[in-house]
Amino acid sequence: MPLSPYQQLEEEFRRLHAFRGAASVLRWDAAVMMPRGSSELRGEQLAALETEGHTLVTSPRVSRLLDRADANAQGLEDWQLANLREMRRERDHAIATPQKLVSRLAKATARAEIKWMEAREKSDFKLFAPHLEEVMNLLRDKAALLGKALNLDPYDALADEFSPGLRSAEIDAIFTTLGRRLPSLIQEVIQLQSKRPPLELSGKFAPSKQRQLALEVMKTLGFPFDRGRLDESEHPFTGGIPGDIRITTRFSPTEPLSGLMGILHESGHAMYDVGLPEAWRGQPVGRDRGMAMQESQSLLLEMVICRNRPFMRYLQPLLEKTFGVSGPEWEVENLYRLLLRVRRSLIRVDADEVTYPVHIMLRYELENEILKGELKIKDLPEAWNSRMQDRLGVRPTNDAEGCLQDVHWAVGSFGYFPSYAIGAVIAGQLYEALRNDRPDLDEEVAAGQFGGLFDWLRQNVHGLGASLSTPELITNATGKPLSASAWLRYVEGKYLEE
Amino acid sequence: MPLSPYQQLEEEFRRLHAFRGAASVLRWDAAVMMPRGSSELRGEQLAALETEGHTLVTSPRVSRLLDRADANAQGLEDWQLANLREMRRERDHAIATPQKLVSRLAKATARAEIKWMEAREKSDFKLFAPHLEEVMNLLRDKAALLGKALNLDPYDALADEFSPGLRSAEIDAIFTTLGRRLPSLIQEVIQLQSKRPPLELSGKFAPSKQRQLALEVMKTLGFPFDRGRLDESEHPFTGGIPGDIRITTRFSPTEPLSGLMGILHESGHAMYDVGLPEAWRGQPVGRDRGMAMQESQSLLLEMVICRNRPFMRYLQPLLEKTFGVSGPEWEVENLYRLLLRVRRSLIRVDADEVTYPVHIMLRYELENEILKGELKIKDLPEAWNSRMQDRLGVRPTNDAEGCLQDVHWAVGSFGYFPSYAIGAVIAGQLYEALRNDRPDLDEEVAAGQFGGLFDWLRQNVHGLGASLSTPELITNATGKPLSASAWLRYVEGKYLEE
Repeated sequence: MPLSPYQQLEEEFRRLHAFRGAASVLRWDAAVMMPRGSSELRGEQLAALETEGHTLVTSPRVSRLLDRADANAQGLEDWQLANLREMRRERDHAIATPQKLVSRLAKATARAEIKWMEAREKSDFKLFAPHLEEVMNLLRDKAALLGKALNLDPYDALADEFSPGLRSAEIDAIFTTLGRRLPSLIQEVIQLQSKRPPLELSGKFAPSKQRQLALEVMKTLGFPFDRGRLDESEHPFTGGIPGDIRITTRFSPTEPLSGLMGILHESGHAMYDVGLPEAWRGQPVGRDRGMAMQESQSLLLEMVICRNRPFMRYLQPLLEKTFGVSGPEWEVENLYRLLLRVRRSLIRVDADEVTYPVHIMLRYELENEILKGELKIKDLPEAWNSRMQDRLGVRPTNDAEGCLQDVHWAVGSFGYFPSYAIGAVIAGQLYEALRNDRPDLDEEVAAGQFGGLFDWLRQNVHGLGASLSTPELITNATGKPLSASAWLRYVEGKYLEE
Repeated sequence: MPLSPYQQLEEEFRRLHAFRGAASVLRWDAAVMMPRGSSELRGEQLAALETEGHTLVTSPRVSRLLDRADANAQGLEDWQLANLREMRRERDHAIATPQKLVSRLAKATARAEIKWMEAREKSDFKLFAPHLEEVMNLLRDKAALLGKALNLDPYDALADEFSPGLRSAEIDAIFTTLGRRLPSLIQEVIQLQSKRPPLELSGKFAPSKQRQLALEVMKTLGFPFDRGRLDESEHPFTGGIPGDIRITTRFSPTEPLSGLMGILHESGHAMYDVGLPEAWRGQPVGRDRGMAMQESQSLLLEMVICRNRPFMRYLQPLLEKTFGVSGPEWEVENLYRLLLRVRRSLIRVDADEVTYPVHIMLRYELENEILKGELKIKDLPEAWNSRMQDRLGVRPTNDAEGCLQDVHWAVGSFGYFPSYAIGAVIAGQLYEALRNDRPDLDEEVAAGQFGGLFDWLRQNVHGLGASLSTPELITNATGKPLSASAWLRYVEGKYLEE
């Protein structure tokens, strides 16, 4: 029997998945293993794979098959229908941007990234400005074309690539709520914490021992080491693909917890990938539901579950055993308070849970204004610095700790930043629902039992893959539409505890 | 100005090169880094890349461009003409085997390889026989089609994929010469060596120290660590691509020299890749000249240059320094004799320089008879064992140390084995020419100066890429057509020294 149009599409997308999986392992290799001098060659390989993928998705054959499969959709099951919808989504995104623009953007961002590194090193925004300008001009074209094709505002069209279905309207509503409460909350928390500063940890903690501890914790979480690895890289990330997951971290010999917390963050991503629906592996509907959901999983594990007392009760004996340490600074309560310190700081990636959304809201504002042309590139450093002063009460003294700190804009990732803060908010809302469903969660975590946690997540998030849109997935899991209230309740409960 | 047909071909083959480079790094990853459970996924990625490459080379567009470029060849320079010839060679090879047969062979060999592993573990040829039978049936079809397309005998057609231009007529002539001299030579050498057995090395040699020593030696050789790596894997190999070379070895804690000798072997391959013509990187003419030439380079470095007194004079102080050893067994002359020991043994990969060709000649005979259908698969073990007894005077007691020891036939590599012995013979002939041109070679090597050696190789072999056929390359480098006489002179001089 000849394959149906739908079945033929599954074959095409399986091939696409193979190309993307290959590219993902090659990117991991580039960050973790590749010799420095081989980056140009690797760039050519990745460009060839990307072009191949773009050609495949935008081919007349795929468009024709999509139309024929849609016309014969009555015989398809729900997951197949969702898969078909995701296939079309991919095709619509890809075809809206002409190959020529794709490749001009790829070249411009490759140049801009190199210049960004140089500019950040010298803390000189002027070196980077013309390259960001070039990227922006191309991105505006892309946003306009994509917006027209998807019937979305330009910003939403770009954001939709990262977190499908998430719109400015929802982001604005959440950020408005957060913007109202956070300034005073931060003030209250800092005041409260200043009354009982935790004891500092001191000493040297061999990376090899930190690694051994991390592996033990990952095993307990259920990380599948027969289908994944832990390595070290300059910037921690989760790479590879479901079925071959590569997470990385960075160990500091003077900070015994920072490498581990990084690993817990990446493990949240990894366990999401592990829990994706096995039967749909290789198909668009079998993928994760984008960056906001991904970030909700990493933050739920790191920030909500692990930077918490029950997890510290589990971890504390392991720390004593691994590093041969003891004393009041290693007691559960002190470790807990060390991990919860809130500070007005300049660098996003080092920010705590409470001030973090302020960093994101600033970037969201600025990237919206830049995209609309309301803010000129040359005025970015001053806008960044003065608003940072205004929103968080600290002012960068140079561009490296200001608007040059993140790579995102250099590589053309406009509309990505909100995913981080929305991810935190989703984590808060999932956590509330999770605690309702599993009242014994704290005891389980303290006993090093994570099976119940991941069962719940698999059932309500991971196992659904991309079968629902981001907002649908949240309503489905928590019974409520996305809002900031659960996260605010969680943060207030945790940080304003007397 | 629009691109000429030749220029368009260069673009197509550059894309092919990117796919192949990606696949090569993914294969390295599979052997060195990949978690065990991810092999099926990796298989899908590699199959997708391979299919893509095959589709590209056999596309009507490439055939059309080849015809148009040939018709307009008068404007092309020599290297471009050679490149065009190599492009056509690739296309002729690829197009002779229909995609359907390619994919049936890929599946049959994947199954056969797994069954081969099991059969070897259990030392039971019967488990493997039906799978080898299946592979052989498909290979016979392929050999017939390829032979017809290339106007070659079936065996030569298969062998041409591994060592372009090398034919049975030449192989037969060389093997006849070797077959006449080797039995008595082996006898003489063993008798001579029995008079002065070397002292054994004993002790434990930490792999981390062996690695440190190996890195120092590789640096001295000129291995480009900004474009290459050294790792460990079960089976040593050279992977990656020129510009990103990945060599691997295996360290034994009780044998301080075996890991290093493996690395020197792979470094010979690696330095060939390093010396390929930079200007033609990514084009067919910029590649190495096939497996016999590759093997000539690894054997020249390991066997001829490094298993030799001058190299031992360079290495000996490093061994003392690295392992903190001393004594008569660590003296240059003893080390030299340890590395030269000749033994009648059963396993090819452990064989010494003198008996090695006997192992190959046996396989060459057998694979010819199997391909022609003169030898039945079920009769292979007995044929192997009795001829091994006849040719080398040792008889396997089970299939694992007999006809199951090599993976080559399981994966369909018929016509590959001669490359090893012909590679040795080429190494001998190159060495004679090299010594004529560089009379101070021994002193240079003893002083750890390898620049002169690699300059000569770059000028006469590496830098010529695939611009000449295998026989042309040898005549060009040595002034003589390929024959066994230089190698026999070299071996007799080295092993019959009183």
